[in-house]
Amino acid sequence: MSAAIALSERGRGRTGENPNVGCIIVKDGKIVGRGWTQPGGRPHAEAIALAQAGAEAKGADIYVTMEPCAHKSERGPTCADLVKDAAPARVIVATLDIDERTRRHGIDRLGNSGISVSVGVLEQQAHRAMAGFFTRMEKGRPYVTLKLAMSLDGCIAMADGTSKWITGDRARAHAHLERARCDAILVGAGTVAADRPGLDVRLDGLNDRSPKPVVLGKAEVPEHWAEISEPQAIAELGQINWLLIEGGAATAASFLQAGLVDRLLLYRAPVIIGGGLTGVADIGLENLDSAHGQWNRLDRRDLGQDVLEIYERAA
Amino acid sequence: MSAAIALSERGRGRTGENPNVGCIIVKDGKIVGRGWTQPGGRPHAEAIALAQAGAEAKGADIYVTMEPCAHKSERGPTCADLVKDAAPARVIVATLDIDERTRRHGIDRLGNSGISVSVGVLEQQAHRAMAGFFTRMEKGRPYVTLKLAMSLDGCIAMADGTSKWITGDRARAHAHLERARCDAILVGAGTVAADRPGLDVRLDGLNDRSPKPVVLGKAEVPEHWAEISEPQAIAELGQINWLLIEGGAATAASFLQAGLVDRLLLYRAPVIIGGGLTGVADIGLENLDSAHGQWNRLDRRDLGQDVLEIYERAA
Repeated sequence: MSAAIALSERGRGRTGENPNVGCIIVKDGKIVGRGWTQPGGRPHAEAIALAQAGAEAKGADIYVTMEPCAHKSERGPTCADLVKDAAPARVIVATLDIDERTRRHGIDRLGNSGISVSVGVLEQQAHRAMAGFFTRMEKGRPYVTLKLAMSLDGCIAMADGTSKWITGDRARAHAHLERARCDAILVGAGTVAADRPGLDVRLDGLNDRSPKPVVLGKAEVPEHWAEISEPQAIAELGQINWLLIEGGAATAASFLQAGLVDRLLLYRAPVIIGGGLTGVADIGLENLDSAHGQWNRLDRRDLGQDVLEIYERAA
Repeated sequence: MSAAIALSERGRGRTGENPNVGCIIVKDGKIVGRGWTQPGGRPHAEAIALAQAGAEAKGADIYVTMEPCAHKSERGPTCADLVKDAAPARVIVATLDIDERTRRHGIDRLGNSGISVSVGVLEQQAHRAMAGFFTRMEKGRPYVTLKLAMSLDGCIAMADGTSKWITGDRARAHAHLERARCDAILVGAGTVAADRPGLDVRLDGLNDRSPKPVVLGKAEVPEHWAEISEPQAIAELGQINWLLIEGGAATAASFLQAGLVDRLLLYRAPVIIGGGLTGVADIGLENLDSAHGQWNRLDRRDLGQDVLEIYERAA
């Protein structure tokens, strides 16, 4: 299932309103099929993996990060039917769908046809890997990540705004990879005016994966940018599961204050700037007590000389 | 030798101008003597360990973090003579003394009497554990640690100055332990005026280890405080190997700008403050390039929900 979850990550930020599912088919200890939700949401992961496996799928074990879909679509047969017809021995599911049209129907259809079904394997990890879909289904808005690249003394830039570069090559490449895994990137109007950021993915082979640029506030932006006037308006950005916020401090603060940040991506370089700019403006915090208990660390890794810490909002 | 270095840490911040040495004597696989430099600098670690070992020291292995002293003192016999008279089989030394009166004389005296001597075992670790002594001998000033307790967004306080509490119990207890391991703590005049900090060690059993308080600048302080007018004046504080700087931002900046910070002790709590105060004021940084390559991470550990990172200045 870990491998299926890793595959699901390949679709992250490209599957529209569909979940980025991963699927692996194992027969006699060998992987005979691998699939992940394709750009735009189709084909689904199971359809790809089953097509690869062909007749080998019969009697195989199918690992899938989300319950196969069971509601009809104009875009093809349901995955529950495809899986049932392939007659695997077992289907192992990380998490149920949250869409009421499929929820439990997918696994019931399989179970009723005599296939062994297990649910809940690495559920939490799968939920995180598809958090964009779940957040949109539950809250009607994308999953929001706030990125900050800082010095040891907490500055995101020198006093004059210079921020090229605080972090090193590997951290910046990772930040571009995170861009590629989002449907949209948002910056504030002030950042647009000051930096004219491209917000594209500058990684060889991933240049075509640049997310939709969005600005908060009034700014002169190219035509393909989206504009919103307040953080809550991210709900109206359309088929977007994953949103990355890249600055500046006022924008970060407005999303934090609105409770609209799900994850923090903190890159920190071993430098001292001194008297520089911080990444988050006033969030209306009334006292330090109320700042506690909001964030849990999910991951920490070294990227060259820099450190990446990932925090998610406490449930 | 690791155990001897750990013992040496017990004397840290209490040995005056003497190095905080650790010593362990091993006979037939058993520890028969343990010692570390006592408060004020005497007795020395070897003298304590040899007294414990008694006749067992004959033919034993003696691990000592620094070459035994070889220069006469009014305060007792040299450790080189004490060790020689105990007739151990081997003496294993982490690092040579830097004091010319002893350097190489200590090990030569042992070697010339037929004792096997090894030098350089865990030398770097021992050097760090006694960095206060080495810094004072090499640079004529104490080893300086700058402490900052911050939020994820790099604030050391809310905009109104409130900083109680950003970090949790365990991080604060650790910070008090670090106080106990310093000879002196320094704060700026502004911090004195704003906070009237006690700078004492508030840990059961270590309350008597509170370091000498020092203020940078003009402030109304109790009589037992020392006052200095500029960072460079730490050289004149007297028999002090270890100095801890606890704030505020201007003081931190003045020491950093003067190149007088050897180590950073960064406590970071999983909270977002937003629009708060940063820990380091302008240090006159001209560009980001010149900020790089200055600091190497030495340690990182979790303290409850918080993280402690320790950086040392690159050589």
